[in-house]
Amino acid sequence: MMIPQPYLLFLGDVTDPLAAKTARGIHAWRPAFCVGQLRLPGCTVSLGLEDLTIAAARGRGVNTLVLGTANAGGLLPSHWLDTVREAIGAGMNIANGLHQRLVDIPGLVELAETHQVQLFDVRHRRPALEVGSGKARSGKRVLTVGTDCSVGKMYTSLALEAALRQRGLKADFRATGQTGVLVAGKGIAIDAVIADFIAGAAEAISPANDADHWDIIEGQGSLFHPSYAGVSMGLIHGAQPHWLVMCHEIGRAHMRHLPHQPMVSLQDCVEANLRAAAVTSPDVRLAGFAINTSSVSEQEAVDYCQEIAAQFGVPATDPVRFGIDDIAALLQERG
Amino acid sequence: MMIPQPYLLFLGDVTDPLAAKTARGIHAWRPAFCVGQLRLPGCTVSLGLEDLTIAAARGRGVNTLVLGTANAGGLLPSHWLDTVREAIGAGMNIANGLHQRLVDIPGLVELAETHQVQLFDVRHRRPALEVGSGKARSGKRVLTVGTDCSVGKMYTSLALEAALRQRGLKADFRATGQTGVLVAGKGIAIDAVIADFIAGAAEAISPANDADHWDIIEGQGSLFHPSYAGVSMGLIHGAQPHWLVMCHEIGRAHMRHLPHQPMVSLQDCVEANLRAAAVTSPDVRLAGFAINTSSVSEQEAVDYCQEIAAQFGVPATDPVRFGIDDIAALLQERG
Repeated sequence: MMIPQPYLLFLGDVTDPLAAKTARGIHAWRPAFCVGQLRLPGCTVSLGLEDLTIAAARGRGVNTLVLGTANAGGLLPSHWLDTVREAIGAGMNIANGLHQRLVDIPGLVELAETHQVQLFDVRHRRPALEVGSGKARSGKRVLTVGTDCSVGKMYTSLALEAALRQRGLKADFRATGQTGVLVAGKGIAIDAVIADFIAGAAEAISPANDADHWDIIEGQGSLFHPSYAGVSMGLIHGAQPHWLVMCHEIGRAHMRHLPHQPMVSLQDCVEANLRAAAVTSPDVRLAGFAINTSSVSEQEAVDYCQEIAAQFGVPATDPVRFGIDDIAALLQERG
Repeated sequence: MMIPQPYLLFLGDVTDPLAAKTARGIHAWRPAFCVGQLRLPGCTVSLGLEDLTIAAARGRGVNTLVLGTANAGGLLPSHWLDTVREAIGAGMNIANGLHQRLVDIPGLVELAETHQVQLFDVRHRRPALEVGSGKARSGKRVLTVGTDCSVGKMYTSLALEAALRQRGLKADFRATGQTGVLVAGKGIAIDAVIADFIAGAAEAISPANDADHWDIIEGQGSLFHPSYAGVSMGLIHGAQPHWLVMCHEIGRAHMRHLPHQPMVSLQDCVEANLRAAAVTSPDVRLAGFAINTSSVSEQEAVDYCQEIAAQFGVPATDPVRFGIDDIAALLQERG
C-alpha cells in the first residue's frame, strides 16, 4: 500500500488543537505532501496551510483527502460525510486514521468504485502476511523502544531519519502506527494485525536493503506495559534491530492509563529490550536515549540528560529541545 | 462461547495417525464428551470409539460434530462436505479446528441458519475483547511456558489440571489454542486475536475466581521464538500467573521450523519468563519443569530430570512418563 500523494488535510470542525495531532504530524514531517487544509465552519484550529475547497485542491493535483483528526471514540461525525463524498466524486482517494472504518459507511465503497478511487482505513489494514522467520537480512536497522506508550517513539524515529539524511546517509522511516503510516504514506498499523503475524509484519515493513541503508523503525508500546507488550515484543523480534533508541518521559508517575501499574527503571527496561532484540540480532546495542522533558525546565532537562548519558555511556537528548544529532553521529560513526 | 457437548469425532479418510492428533487429544482428556467416531471409507485411523452414523449419533444425543483432524495446509477436503451438511441437517453444530473456515464455504452459513445450529471456526474466532489492564484479580493461576513451540504445553496443562483435581482441589484448564478449545469446549485461540488484544484475551479466559481456585492456563510459543514471541508475551502478562511451569523437549537442536535459530538455555528462559510475568504478578515463582523426554531412554530421562531439579530446586518431570504429581503437590503445599 502506498497512499497517493499529495494530500489535502481535512480538519473538520474541531476546536481542540490536540484533536488535529495527526494532521499536524503529517504537515510537520512531510510538508511537501501537504497542498492545503480543508476546514468546516466552526473549526478554530489551523495548520497555517492554505484553505482549499475540494475542487481547488483537485485542481492543484491533490490525490488524497486525509482525515487527520483524532476524536473521542474515534468516530467519523456524520456531518463530515458530505465532504468525504465530494472528494470521492472529485476523484480523490480517502485516507482515514480514525477507528471507524470508511468501508462500513453505507454507500461509500460503491461510490469509491464508481469513481475508481481507494479508501484507506489505516488503522484496520490487514495485509496478507507471513509469520516472522528471524532470518538475518541485509541493511542497517534502528528501532525506537520505550518505557511506556506515548513517550515520543514516532517523533524520535522521524527526527532520527531527518538527522541521518542531513548527514548524507540513506535512511527511511518505517511506520507501525496510524499517524506514522499517514506521514510515510505506507507502513502497517502493527497493533491491528493478527497476533501470530506481529513479527512478520515488522519484517515486511523493513525488508532486506543495501548494506549502507538505514531503516528507522517506529516502535510501539513497551515490554513493560500490561496491555500492549505482546505487540512490542513481536515488533522487536521482527525489526531485527542493530541499534535501539530508548524513549522515555521524565517524571511519568505510572504506566499510561494504568494508575496501578508502576513504571520500570531505565536500567531494567534497557536490559529487557536488548535481551529481547538479541534473539534475532545477537549484536544489538543501545544507541542512546530520547527523553521527553517537556514537564521540566531547560536546565533540569540538561541535567537529567547528562546524568543518563553518564550512567549508560551513550547520548541522551530531548529531540524536541536539543535535536537528535548526537545519536545520528554515533550511528554514522559506529555503523 | 461454549461448544455444546457431547461430540461425534469426525476423522474423514485420514491414514496418518498424526493427522488425528486433535481428535485423539479430545478423546484422551475428555472421554465423557466423546460418544463415537465417524470415519469415511479408506480411513485407517481409529480412536477405539464406536463408529456411528450421523443419525445414530444424533439418536445418542450428540450435539456437535467435531472436525478433529489436522491436514497439510489446513484445508477441508471437499468430499468431506456431504458429512458436514448431513450433520447440520440432523441438527448438529459443527466445530472446526482446521485453518479453512466453515463460514467461507458457500451455502453452509445459510444451511446452519435453516437448521438453527452453530458453526464454530475455532481458529478464527475473534470475540469482542478489551485490551488487558494488568489489574490484580483473585484466584490462583498457573501458566505453562516453554523454551519453544510444540514442547507439550497443552499436555502439561491438562495433566496438571487432572493432578490438582485428583488432590481434591478446584482446578480448570484454560484453553488458548484450537485443540485446547475443542478439549475444553471453550477458550480462545489466542494467536488469532488482533495484536492489541492478546493480553486482554488472556484476562478474559481466566477471570477473577475463588481464592482457592486454580486456573491452569495453556501457554503458547516461547519468548525466544522469533515468529510467535509477541503472543507468548501478551499471554504471560494477561495470565497474571502466580506460578510458571517451564516446558522443554530434551535434545531439540534449534527453534521449531527455524534451523538458523538456536535454542536458549533453560536458565535464560526461566529468568526471562519470570521477569515478564512479574510485570503483572510481582511474586510469580517457578513451580517446576515438564520435559518431553521421548527421544531418550528412561534412565537418561530420570537422570536429566534429577539434574534439572537439583539445578533449579523445583520438581522436574516428564508428565507422560512420570506424571506431574510432584508439581501438583508443590502447588498444593505452597499455594
